[in-house]
Amino acid sequence: MINKLVEKIKKTEAPIVVGLDPMMKFIPEHIQQAAFKEFGETLEGAAEAIWQYNKAIVDNIYDLIPCVKPQIAMYEQFGIPGLIAYKKTIEYCKSKDLVVIGDIKRGDIGSTSEAYAVGHLGKVKVGNNSYYSFDEDFATLAPYMGSDSINPFKKICQEEKKGLFILVKTSNPSSGEFQDRLIDGRPLYEWVAEKVVEWGSDFMGDSYSYIGAVVGATYPEMGKVLRELMPKSFILVPGYGAQGGKGADLVHFFNQDGLGAIVNSSRGIIAAYQQEQYQALGAANFADASRQAVIDMREDIKQALK
Amino acid sequence: MINKLVEKIKKTEAPIVVGLDPMMKFIPEHIQQAAFKEFGETLEGAAEAIWQYNKAIVDNIYDLIPCVKPQIAMYEQFGIPGLIAYKKTIEYCKSKDLVVIGDIKRGDIGSTSEAYAVGHLGKVKVGNNSYYSFDEDFATLAPYMGSDSINPFKKICQEEKKGLFILVKTSNPSSGEFQDRLIDGRPLYEWVAEKVVEWGSDFMGDSYSYIGAVVGATYPEMGKVLRELMPKSFILVPGYGAQGGKGADLVHFFNQDGLGAIVNSSRGIIAAYQQEQYQALGAANFADASRQAVIDMREDIKQALK
Repeated sequence: MINKLVEKIKKTEAPIVVGLDPMMKFIPEHIQQAAFKEFGETLEGAAEAIWQYNKAIVDNIYDLIPCVKPQIAMYEQFGIPGLIAYKKTIEYCKSKDLVVIGDIKRGDIGSTSEAYAVGHLGKVKVGNNSYYSFDEDFATLAPYMGSDSINPFKKICQEEKKGLFILVKTSNPSSGEFQDRLIDGRPLYEWVAEKVVEWGSDFMGDSYSYIGAVVGATYPEMGKVLRELMPKSFILVPGYGAQGGKGADLVHFFNQDGLGAIVNSSRGIIAAYQQEQYQALGAANFADASRQAVIDMREDIKQALK
Repeated sequence: MINKLVEKIKKTEAPIVVGLDPMMKFIPEHIQQAAFKEFGETLEGAAEAIWQYNKAIVDNIYDLIPCVKPQIAMYEQFGIPGLIAYKKTIEYCKSKDLVVIGDIKRGDIGSTSEAYAVGHLGKVKVGNNSYYSFDEDFATLAPYMGSDSINPFKKICQEEKKGLFILVKTSNPSSGEFQDRLIDGRPLYEWVAEKVVEWGSDFMGDSYSYIGAVVGATYPEMGKVLRELMPKSFILVPGYGAQGGKGADLVHFFNQDGLGAIVNSSRGIIAAYQQEQYQALGAANFADASRQAVIDMREDIKQALK
């Protein structure tokens, strides 16, 4: 799957992952109303609105991008109907040949970690049958509990040729509270990065490891250090756009080959129609605004990498 | 909810939380077969088996214990049907007046953390309506991303009078990889513990804070230090029984008032019938074995605290 991701990035010339994080306030009124008319102002109604919104955006941008990253929390908040929409979104994106990163940030140990792993990336056994439950291509994971939380996922990934992105240095303002604390003179996030390298070293694709890292665009100087520390790890970079990361900041996250990083934008793409720059298109054409925002982001990154 | 937890612990004289972590290998053959007969060897069949298994155990032990802790991964692995069983289990336990800790270990930031918080502990808005999606009483959280991941949950907890348990020192063998690393001479888990105190200091119940900590029974010496560091934080203690923690190790996790900790046992209770000690009861009477295991655990802790 890491090979497919790299290939698709080369083909689209867009090291971009679109965060499918549908908040109700992003969803145009006409889509919400249509869904509520059918299902009422219920969890089912919200899930239908999310699904129609996602589908329209994916239909309009899938040819431009390699990858999407649905944030499961945005679906999980609507309970069972929301999670049905999450699953439908994954299936639909895969039918469009997009690589799907499940942004689940799970982290647990032993049999529990294994349960998450089979549920999201592998197959769960029931009697003599086995089933894919959510079936994302990659998952994001939290590292606080150590190797015990990563290894069960790694095992499933090796069976399924799927991959992981481990939180190393996150994009949020308070990420430094623990991540930046010095241990033997080096910040915690560097120690986590070393573990990411270790976990991924015997699980390599053609040019990059199946085990990558999450490093926020909002910390470009740290990104530079981490890029060197993890030369074979793909870096998933959140924080571009809405959180303040700029194109010029991104250059440090890439290798000399122009690869090694994939930059996430969520509301910057999916709610582009609400931004001044794209407002003229109108809410009715929200998916066109998303398409234009992808094109502009691709150009912004291309310029930065020149 | 922390007050209710304390009251129920006093009333039952059992600082015990039963982990409802149903793995298929724990579920007696006759329950699996009945479920598969109705739904086939499908995800729905697995979910039905889980639900019937949980229900029988809860029916047989609810009067003895204050609290249950379903581990969402064990349900999530079976996809949507599994999560329906998770929700049904929560509702059923609450109908039996049990306090429910959702062992979800979520950890994300900003609007994403807020989405998890409203989905699990609060109400989500849809148009002019709002709904409880999963509606646990407490949730476990991972701290790696810092305050940005805790504050949205804290806000919802304050509205709903619900609580949190933050991972501080986990019970697994590799927990030390990051958690034990020294920062200014003190291990990371102590720094996290200080934050737990800070987050919880302005959110107090009658005697304990609504924000507690997770500290593994497998590290009793660290538990002792952490108990002193967080005098007003309730400690959720996993690792008793199957993971190797013993009754005598637990004494350090409690305060002088005999309160301040709640000890988790999962397979030790729910799969008691598979242990030598209770095998004579037979698989048909698995729920009786669970009841006896609760009584024995209560006694073990009582002796340790003498």
